[in-house]
Amino acid sequence: MDFFPSALENLIDKFATLPGIGRKTAQRLAFYVIALDEERALAFADAIREAKQDVNFCEVCLNLADSDLCSVCRDERRSKKLVCVVPDPKGVLAIERSHEFDGVYHVLHGVISPIGNVGPDDIRVKELVKRVSGGEIEEVIMATNPDTEGETTARYISRLLQPFEVKVTRLAYGIPVGGSLEFVDDATLMRALEGRLEM
Amino acid sequence: MDFFPSALENLIDKFATLPGIGRKTAQRLAFYVIALDEERALAFADAIREAKQDVNFCEVCLNLADSDLCSVCRDERRSKKLVCVVPDPKGVLAIERSHEFDGVYHVLHGVISPIGNVGPDDIRVKELVKRVSGGEIEEVIMATNPDTEGETTARYISRLLQPFEVKVTRLAYGIPVGGSLEFVDDATLMRALEGRLEM
Repeated sequence: MDFFPSALENLIDKFATLPGIGRKTAQRLAFYVIALDEERALAFADAIREAKQDVNFCEVCLNLADSDLCSVCRDERRSKKLVCVVPDPKGVLAIERSHEFDGVYHVLHGVISPIGNVGPDDIRVKELVKRVSGGEIEEVIMATNPDTEGETTARYISRLLQPFEVKVTRLAYGIPVGGSLEFVDDATLMRALEGRLEM
Repeated sequence: MDFFPSALENLIDKFATLPGIGRKTAQRLAFYVIALDEERALAFADAIREAKQDVNFCEVCLNLADSDLCSVCRDERRSKKLVCVVPDPKGVLAIERSHEFDGVYHVLHGVISPIGNVGPDDIRVKELVKRVSGGEIEEVIMATNPDTEGETTARYISRLLQPFEVKVTRLAYGIPVGGSLEFVDDATLMRALEGRLEM
């Protein structure tokens, strides 16, 4: 027997399908939403509808976009010769935050993961190869995550791009700025030593 | 500059207004929702809309309801002479889970809290007094939370109901079933001793 009205139970179910949201939290969120005034609650519903309907993928880099091109690819000041390959749109955000990159992106929408049963054909590698084969791109920077799957994906793609006249690079490994040496793990320290620079 | 399409930024903002949901989590949830297939994403939007529009309050007990009366008040097998007073609709759910209560409820929608600036007029006490003054109710069980505000609310209401011929009781304090004595706090143990029963 449901003690709550079915529309409320339905909303709780919906919240509970979200990642990291358990039944209790879903209940709390649903209660919060129905306690909102009508206008704000409906604005929430519309926000979901509009985000789903208005957001699509950039034709060039597959980043999230609200028109054919994303805001980065539309920007004429960005160099189209330099492409940074990221696993997902959040990667774009991370790199943009550094304010250091003036090229464009390629969003893979995933990484190669034998355990997760994700192969090269399941992510947007073909689209990258096609872009590179156009001959305009001079450098591809691999910015996948510094874990096994990210490494595997970066290596796979770099091999795939070998036939083309393009430089393939990778984000540097090393100790994080502002960190403390004692909290840096062994693997990172090893990479930081390997990649040491002359002062 | 927003790097995400505005409709997505808007959805992230909406999620971030929910209690306990920070900016990062809101981003994660919004990304999840726009990655859902069209049908499921729109079902989510509709669930919010419908929960807000279809759910109202029971005319008698102020519990959540999808018609004039809630499912408990509609149930003819429930005794209308016994009323359990709970702070919110979640209280109804908690008591129902015990399968021990066959009376009806009164939902206060809050507790008296001098710190939170919530007075007796801000919660649904008047409605309770009006129900009791009808003369049908024989016993009112206070089931507010076992904290200072819950206690204060219970005492206030019990005084308010003194003029009427109604028994006012309170949920028993004591050690929780299945718990271990060593983890029971002093105040609870004191109450458990005070309320000890003959075997």
